[in-house]
Amino acid sequence: MELSTLTDQKSLLATMAPGKRTRLHRLLYEFGPGNGTLLLLPIDQGIEHGPRDFFPNPASKDPEYQFRLAAEAGYSAIACQIGLATKYYPDYAGRVSLILKINAKTDVPSSDDAFSPLNASVEDAVRLGADAVGYTLYVGSPRQDDDLAQLKTVREDCDRFGMPLVIWAYPRGSAIEKKGGQTTFYAIDYAARLAMEMGADIVKLNMPKVDPEKDKLTPAPYNEMDYTQDDAIRGCVESAGRALVVLSGGSKIDDEELLAQTRSIMEAGGSGVIYGRNVWQREWDAAVEIVEQIRQTVVSSVRRTP
Amino acid sequence: MELSTLTDQKSLLATMAPGKRTRLHRLLYEFGPGNGTLLLLPIDQGIEHGPRDFFPNPASKDPEYQFRLAAEAGYSAIACQIGLATKYYPDYAGRVSLILKINAKTDVPSSDDAFSPLNASVEDAVRLGADAVGYTLYVGSPRQDDDLAQLKTVREDCDRFGMPLVIWAYPRGSAIEKKGGQTTFYAIDYAARLAMEMGADIVKLNMPKVDPEKDKLTPAPYNEMDYTQDDAIRGCVESAGRALVVLSGGSKIDDEELLAQTRSIMEAGGSGVIYGRNVWQREWDAAVEIVEQIRQTVVSSVRRTP
Amino acid sequence: MELSTLTDQKSLLATMAPGKRTRLHRLLYEFGPGNGTLLLLPIDQGIEHGPRDFFPNPASKDPEYQFRLAAEAGYSAIACQIGLATKYYPDYAGRVSLILKINAKTDVPSSDDAFSPLNASVEDAVRLGADAVGYTLYVGSPRQDDDLAQLKTVREDCDRFGMPLVIWAYPRGSAIEKKGGQTTFYAIDYAARLAMEMGADIVKLNMPKVDPEKDKLTPAPYNEMDYTQDDAIRGCVESAGRALVVLSGGSKIDDEELLAQTRSIMEAGGSGVIYGRNVWQREWDAAVEIVEQIRQTVVSSVRRTP
Amino acid sequence: MELSTLTDQKSLLATMAPGKRTRLHRLLYEFGPGNGTLLLLPIDQGIEHGPRDFFPNPASKDPEYQFRLAAEAGYSAIACQIGLATKYYPDYAGRVSLILKINAKTDVPSSDDAFSPLNASVEDAVRLGADAVGYTLYVGSPRQDDDLAQLKTVREDCDRFGMPLVIWAYPRGSAIEKKGGQTTFYAIDYAARLAMEMGADIVKLNMPKVDPEKDKLTPAPYNEMDYTQDDAIRGCVESAGRALVVLSGGSKIDDEELLAQTRSIMEAGGSGVIYGRNVWQREWDAAVEIVEQIRQTVVSSVRRTP
Amino acid sequence: MELSTLTDQKSLLATMAPGKRTRLHRLLYEFGPGNGTLLLLPIDQGIEHGPRDFFPNPASKDPEYQFRLAAEAGYSAIACQIGLATKYYPDYAGRVSLILKINAKTDVPSSDDAFSPLNASVEDAVRLGADAVGYTLYVGSPRQDDDLAQLKTVREDCDRFGMPLVIWAYPRGSAIEKKGGQTTFYAIDYAARLAMEMGADIVKLNMPKVDPEKDKLTPAPYNEMDYTQDDAIRGCVESAGRALVVLSGGSKIDDEELLAQTRSIMEAGGSGVIYGRNVWQREWDAAVEIVEQIRQTVVSSVRRTP
Repeated sequence: MELSTLTDQKSLLATMAPGKRTRLHRLLYEFGPGNGTLLLLPIDQGIEHGPRDFFPNPASKDPEYQFRLAAEAGYSAIACQIGLATKYYPDYAGRVSLILKINAKTDVPSSDDAFSPLNASVEDAVRLGADAVGYTLYVGSPRQDDDLAQLKTVREDCDRFGMPLVIWAYPRGSAIEKKGGQTTFYAIDYAARLAMEMGADIVKLNMPKVDPEKDKLTPAPYNEMDYTQDDAIRGCVESAGRALVVLSGGSKIDDEELLAQTRSIMEAGGSGVIYGRNVWQREWDAAVEIVEQIRQTVVSSVRRTP
Repeated sequence: MELSTLTDQKSLLATMAPGKRTRLHRLLYEFGPGNGTLLLLPIDQGIEHGPRDFFPNPASKDPEYQFRLAAEAGYSAIACQIGLATKYYPDYAGRVSLILKINAKTDVPSSDDAFSPLNASVEDAVRLGADAVGYTLYVGSPRQDDDLAQLKTVREDCDRFGMPLVIWAYPRGSAIEKKGGQTTFYAIDYAARLAMEMGADIVKLNMPKVDPEKDKLTPAPYNEMDYTQDDAIRGCVESAGRALVVLSGGSKIDDEELLAQTRSIMEAGGSGVIYGRNVWQREWDAAVEIVEQIRQTVVSSVRRTP
Repeated sequence: MELSTLTDQKSLLATMAPGKRTRLHRLLYEFGPGNGTLLLLPIDQGIEHGPRDFFPNPASKDPEYQFRLAAEAGYSAIACQIGLATKYYPDYAGRVSLILKINAKTDVPSSDDAFSPLNASVEDAVRLGADAVGYTLYVGSPRQDDDLAQLKTVREDCDRFGMPLVIWAYPRGSAIEKKGGQTTFYAIDYAARLAMEMGADIVKLNMPKVDPEKDKLTPAPYNEMDYTQDDAIRGCVESAGRALVVLSGGSKIDDEELLAQTRSIMEAGGSGVIYGRNVWQREWDAAVEIVEQIRQTVVSSVRRTP
Repeated sequence: MELSTLTDQKSLLATMAPGKRTRLHRLLYEFGPGNGTLLLLPIDQGIEHGPRDFFPNPASKDPEYQFRLAAEAGYSAIACQIGLATKYYPDYAGRVSLILKINAKTDVPSSDDAFSPLNASVEDAVRLGADAVGYTLYVGSPRQDDDLAQLKTVREDCDRFGMPLVIWAYPRGSAIEKKGGQTTFYAIDYAARLAMEMGADIVKLNMPKVDPEKDKLTPAPYNEMDYTQDDAIRGCVESAGRALVVLSGGSKIDDEELLAQTRSIMEAGGSGVIYGRNVWQREWDAAVEIVEQIRQTVVSSVRRTP
Repeated sequence: MELSTLTDQKSLLATMAPGKRTRLHRLLYEFGPGNGTLLLLPIDQGIEHGPRDFFPNPASKDPEYQFRLAAEAGYSAIACQIGLATKYYPDYAGRVSLILKINAKTDVPSSDDAFSPLNASVEDAVRLGADAVGYTLYVGSPRQDDDLAQLKTVREDCDRFGMPLVIWAYPRGSAIEKKGGQTTFYAIDYAARLAMEMGADIVKLNMPKVDPEKDKLTPAPYNEMDYTQDDAIRGCVESAGRALVVLSGGSKIDDEELLAQTRSIMEAGGSGVIYGRNVWQREWDAAVEIVEQIRQTVVSSVRRTP
């Protein structure tokens, strides 16, 4: 069985209500690389993993580092939780967009029944001048009932306030582990579709990995298909339909690989990337430099009209 | 013990409050085959099963495919979740009715304790111009307490807004598995009655299967009765009383079988069918053609005045 | 140790607020046998057991059968769930009282942790013109905390709307099974008292059974007492204090036994009976006839002023 | 290690807001023995234990018995649940105070995870003219999170309505069983302190028992201390600080023991006793007589100014 | 890998809304040692551990002892629960600040799934004239979802009422035990960051302990790093970013050690200490004396501008 390519998606902006459209326009055209693309800086690792991610570059432990980087190196937006948004964003308001992530968890307990509770609201995002909210959805978790019910309240508030909704769509939990795990094309493809159907305007995905051992465990027809990683990326982007897709970097990887995957996602119809540790685990000058290279890659490879 | 036939049901429309009646009239007479029948296109498989259902016909991965099919091939309505309704329905508003499905789950975790959480509201359906809401009830699940409590809120809102309530009544979970499973006449008969008693205006049922091995495990008197599949269909339709019944197709089957079961359900007093994969897993022309055959079968076999 | 007889109870009606009194008066004096008695027809078996209870008399599968029977054979009221009340009661409004049962469950999962979730509200009962609401309380279930909390909301609404509260008080669950089970005098006596203390105006009880094997497992002093079934009935009625008691029939039994137990409950200070399957599992004429006999027995044996 | 005596407590009434003070004044000075003392009649055993507690004195099964006793024998107040308060208190309103107990459970399931759900509200107490509400807190239960959260809502309503809060502070559950059980000085001392810190105005305690086998299992320094039962009582009373303490009797004990423990609690700084079965499991004249003796003991032994 | 020092934090007061700033100013400058420091007296041990903590100094069992100490020995504030705040704080209002702790639990059940339910609200704190609320967050507990959701409501109310939020950030539960336990640098560092990101204005931490056996179990890079206790303290303070840090004393330790750790925390950029048992487990004069020494140490060692 083979994958085939879809027709182009209709413009997302064209389907949006005014509030969402106004805010998303700022993210896509007014800050960062512009041209309908997104370059996002996530600084949620202090919650999701703890301070250990900051040790490779001690300067990065001070949130000032990431905020200054977002504003000065040319990101579209910084994505962070309520505590940072309240204490650090004010000095950068108007200089870079804010995506308020409104749920989080630590990685101390097992992820078997992963669930990420709300710690802030869409109303907080409105009050703080954010241009979008971020929600982490653990696709396929045994606690998906709580997750989807919680997401419902967020989606409704986004509709009410005209706030774009970015879903971090992560396959997670004991059930997906039995079906090949969270990095397979199957898992991420499912996540992309679910996020879009639940009302995401932007879907944040991790890179699908081709791994024959794991792919064998996925449901048909995934377990019988031949595909490259680029096929998988394109498949996931297509599954998100009219929702925009940004791809994340995960832990620090090689620069060439980073730029290559940036190009892949953009050429597959993605709208941008969200790179944290790959950038701020570098010292300032190196960080600024790699952002510039990413920015150029994004702008030069973009195919999709948002 | 033998099954015997009931008297005809009183018209459902005659018992309805104005808002429900107005909306249901549109489904039954203004769109699709009309004549008091229903031909529904479900596009919820992307959530319930993931994108894998789209691989047999890659064009079907783009929700445009199903929306266009619903509008142009002559369906009464398309049934989908909030994300598709928001992003894809606008272009088809007024050309085909919308049934907003307001709860869903993935099939990643086990169905032992099946529960489908709300992701949208009856108010969303009103706002989007839908003519009904769809609710999936997992009959007999160990979590029936959560399910029935959740359904209560939906039913109340349907009464408040005059919105017809379609219940996808599915026997599911570990307890029903011990009593013959989800496809027996016993299980589907129970589901039909429960849905009607909980306030459904339309009950969506899967086809009951006659399987002596499984039927032996069902409670008396089901385990002692002799019946054909047609008996079972008629029994289930009768159990739904004045609620209208639509039968689903499930995974793709042979055309003749599809049309034969369509005829069976209509002759048993059903009001229509809900066919998704059996239609949109075909290429466009084939899909349009089979819809036409289904439409003719529905109209020519209908017995019930809704 | 011996049981001894209580003094007479003060009139319940005399302690009631106007709304409750008005509605209860209709049940006790305006419909059915009158004279301060109750003859109730329950049609909730389609949910609690599934359609299987209708097979002995196929005509009974159509809810019309029970509604017509309630209105024409001389019942005080019909007790049913929201779906039937909405779709079938309108044609009988004013001809027989309605008791809206507002919680229910299927019998598919085990009863070890029995809990019956609300599917309708006291406000629904008001809107539908009901003269009482029915609530099933699973006395002693491991989930009694959820049950009592849920009942609290119902009792408060009953006080707010002046709606009489009928509690189906059923010992149920794994814990009571270890103490002799749900049919012992101990269990039903406890249920009667609990229901009254939780605010029931009418308590619906199952017939206590004398069974030395099971009684041995009950707590002292029940396990050391000698009593007849009539003693047990009288004991349970006394435990309900000023709340009125109706006794149920359960599955179909012999006519003489049915009438004898009717007499027993009335002579013990009960206020009536609630008979479903014992009546509607008969064909029409036989059903009408047995109702007439029950009616006469109730009226001729009544001892209590409600 | 030795226990030493605290200084006297400041008057509780002096720290109270007007509504609480008005109501508590009625309990302490206008009904029952007065003089700043409390003599309370609990009639909640029909729920907590079932009707079995009434068999020793069959007359006690009729709630009239306890209500008449409370009013005529000279109690400060009767403590009961919503059903009795609604159906039996009206005839005694103005003749004895009412303490509305607003949570309860049966003893059918195990107490390992004891939790007592609300069945009535502080607002019910206001409506019924009660002078206090009673809340049962299972100290140290694995479900303490639900219990404390529920108590919060009650305490807030008490503050809002000026309603005194009586906490039945009972160590209970599997965890306390491993630490010596619910009757140790350790357990009851902890319960007294917790109740006071959670906002109790009056704390109801069971008598601590000195039992070397069990005391060995309690945490240091309890397991190393030498103390008499009177030391333990005084210790618990001190732990309740400015909150008033009433001691309960539990199951029926010898008259002399009853009066002796009454004297002990009063001399230790307690404010009264709460005796149910010890009184109403007697025939009328005997019951009236023992109440008179208790009353005299309470008044003659009181040390504390409330 | 080595730890390195951060740049100074921007003033917290400068980022605060007026209500929070007003109240926090009182804590930092008007009561206690002043000079932008905090010296807090916690009296929550009666709930968290039971009365056993009072036996070393029996006078301490009477809450008067701690309140008088807080007011007369020169503390910035007393931190206690609703019961003490209501019954004991009034006499000291205006003489010392109040931090109302609004959640608590007993230590009777296991801490494997630690969760501390709310027993009071931010509104209570406003009503009682408190200058901050205290919330205990069990970082990494398997019940972190309930904890973070609950904290959300508190944080929102703090924003609404301008009430400073003090988070007692305690690693706790079975998952952290498997990763070295609750006293490691890893665990407390994570707790500090999480509390700050969840919106704490002040973070209360326990002293991290260097213990090679336990540190080996912590995640990389903690398990590979060499650090002294002073490094760990400084690391944790840095992880709290702009939030102020106070360090607790825990159970009673040697005076020199107490003063040395006071100096360490202040020199590491902390804003103060919170000492309970170390102070009030002494007799009055000794308690007053040690407070004076702590006060001098705090003021002489402070480095941070709050």
